[in-house]
Amino acid sequence: MPEPIITLLTDFGAKDHYVGVMKGVILGINRSARLVDICHEIPPQDIRGAAYVLGTSYRYFPQGTIHLAVVDPGVGSERHGLIVKTDRYLFVGPDNGLFTMVYDLEKEVEVYKITESAHIPSEISSTFHGRDIFAPVAAHLSQGVPCSELGELISEPVRLNTLRPDSKGSILKGTIISMDRFGNLITNINRADFDNFVRQGRFEIVADDVVLDTVARTYSDASRGRMIALFGSSDYLELSTVMGSAAERLKLRVGDTISVRRVDEL
Amino acid sequence: MPEPIITLLTDFGAKDHYVGVMKGVILGINRSARLVDICHEIPPQDIRGAAYVLGTSYRYFPQGTIHLAVVDPGVGSERHGLIVKTDRYLFVGPDNGLFTMVYDLEKEVEVYKITESAHIPSEISSTFHGRDIFAPVAAHLSQGVPCSELGELISEPVRLNTLRPDSKGSILKGTIISMDRFGNLITNINRADFDNFVRQGRFEIVADDVVLDTVARTYSDASRGRMIALFGSSDYLELSTVMGSAAERLKLRVGDTISVRRVDEL
Amino acid sequence: MPEPIITLLTDFGAKDHYVGVMKGVILGINRSARLVDICHEIPPQDIRGAAYVLGTSYRYFPQGTIHLAVVDPGVGSERHGLIVKTDRYLFVGPDNGLFTMVYDLEKEVEVYKITESAHIPSEISSTFHGRDIFAPVAAHLSQGVPCSELGELISEPVRLNTLRPDSKGSILKGTIISMDRFGNLITNINRADFDNFVRQGRFEIVADDVVLDTVARTYSDASRGRMIALFGSSDYLELSTVMGSAAERLKLRVGDTISVRRVDEL
Repeated sequence: MPEPIITLLTDFGAKDHYVGVMKGVILGINRSARLVDICHEIPPQDIRGAAYVLGTSYRYFPQGTIHLAVVDPGVGSERHGLIVKTDRYLFVGPDNGLFTMVYDLEKEVEVYKITESAHIPSEISSTFHGRDIFAPVAAHLSQGVPCSELGELISEPVRLNTLRPDSKGSILKGTIISMDRFGNLITNINRADFDNFVRQGRFEIVADDVVLDTVARTYSDASRGRMIALFGSSDYLELSTVMGSAAERLKLRVGDTISVRRVDEL
Repeated sequence: MPEPIITLLTDFGAKDHYVGVMKGVILGINRSARLVDICHEIPPQDIRGAAYVLGTSYRYFPQGTIHLAVVDPGVGSERHGLIVKTDRYLFVGPDNGLFTMVYDLEKEVEVYKITESAHIPSEISSTFHGRDIFAPVAAHLSQGVPCSELGELISEPVRLNTLRPDSKGSILKGTIISMDRFGNLITNINRADFDNFVRQGRFEIVADDVVLDTVARTYSDASRGRMIALFGSSDYLELSTVMGSAAERLKLRVGDTISVRRVDEL
Repeated sequence: MPEPIITLLTDFGAKDHYVGVMKGVILGINRSARLVDICHEIPPQDIRGAAYVLGTSYRYFPQGTIHLAVVDPGVGSERHGLIVKTDRYLFVGPDNGLFTMVYDLEKEVEVYKITESAHIPSEISSTFHGRDIFAPVAAHLSQGVPCSELGELISEPVRLNTLRPDSKGSILKGTIISMDRFGNLITNINRADFDNFVRQGRFEIVADDVVLDTVARTYSDASRGRMIALFGSSDYLELSTVMGSAAERLKLRVGDTISVRRVDEL
């Protein structure tokens, strides 16, 4: 049996020892777990950003991977902890919408609410469930403990409804959900959304004071300093400045909107 | 025999390759070592901050873990290198106070000064003992080399005396020893210090211009923007702004003091 | 057979999930690969900085290590992907000069241009070859697939000519190629360059408005706040402020020049 893989995705940052402590807890339960960081620099408490990062990352890992995700502004409140089981993966984390893209993309999904059990420490802090609940649950899952021993099935997990673009007449409104370190601004409009909307007609992408009427193929498809739109590596529409930073040029930020207009209908 | 775990804690940051190089050196000596990062973003040369992070992290790892800690402003000077051995763990790093909380928290502690031996390269740089001494020593320990082959027992390692709060009459003075990425300000007053001092009486926590007379249970225990005090996940008193940053609100920084006053004695 | 080691060096930063996704792809092909990060905070698209970091890191890893390096401003253009094979290591990444120091330092070097093969996915994005080409190639190499099945030998890979200092009469001109998190400014002048140039005579190191006529042994070799020059842990000349930041004191940046003058010839 190969060593189980557990990925970690949090907003804990690299400044602190919180991620290291979660890894210690996991290895204390299952020393053979293979730990892989997806990202710990999700902006603090940005559930939508984390849902996007998780949603565009998890499928690149081998079948059987356990994805542990902790962006948890409601820690210590009444929000539940979840195990999400698909035919290929397991997910562990708080019930706050973090797994919305998983619900949308996977066909067979079972959602368990984590309940008290012998697998969870009896003393639980009210501030760090990543360490006290989610890491132990992921570690026990990696040893083959079935979901039904760790929780009970529920049918209505929390979903985010701001992860999808909005279309109204000739305008498709998208939201910037991530900015990468190159200053590329990534929207929630994926290639299928875009293609279905523009139906091979003419279009304008309007972002701040910039209007673009083509989609480039890659970052080097125009001259230095030019603003372009393209579908990034996860197939979401993004705004990019060739050899520069779109974020600096546009003054748009995560949460701001951009729009696609069908031109023939103007 | 399970693969040995070696954790790494440094102030080397992620900008550089120093941590990667240490890992290469360890794997060159013991390919089966399992490497886990605790934190590399300790503020440069902040021995006290590193001592706190190590002191609140190491116990979450399984017995037998080797903790390698390198925050080393005195590299190249006469300061010693140490191996600290407790009944559960081994620690490797410079003798500058980094292990103060380990000395305080563990019952059986043996401290070895690292000496020249066949296990250490004969050519040692004067600027990077993490690579040339501490990583090789940790790697050899992980292969079962006994401490006595790597160093000799000493009795008076360097200790920091600024890790504990100060009480004087009705006032307990604490110091902010860490700020996490959420802007929470973590003091050196732990729950036992606090309980012993206030003895269930009334109290005031004074931080900059803010006075608090209760301790909250968790971060969501007050409305957005309110300042609260609570015991964080490591059981140290911290100042927090609900859904915000206490560090921005208070203008206090690491090294600044806060105080707890017994009110009945005012 | 020991588990193969694959290191990762990129300019992807910690903010995003790109590195995590590459690791998922590798583990999907070879679950037993041991992944070690060298650095992901190379300044965006700084090929020279990455070449230096790789060149001063790779030799610390055990024989047989596969070094995967992706700093790739030309992704999606006609630049090739490479496998570089030496008698001890394999390297995978774009053909843009990233491996210049490897070509200079290693004796036996074979360079392969990555070609289409059954080992590479047929659908390749035009923006993320790290995920779609380089990670799969590194993973297949770690399983023992020979270079000749993944590419074909070429003789003229791209080299950077800005990695070496320039001497002209009594002046040796160097360039700052890296700034570490302590604010040390690292030049491209290594100890051999320096020794060959000054030939044990008197010298002056001129950096901005500072002139130094000695080389210190270690960072604590002068009093706090003093500017010193020394050979760092990789044996390159660097400028350092004792317990401070040379970068703040000097206002020099990566890309700026410093010079060494032979004084007897002034």
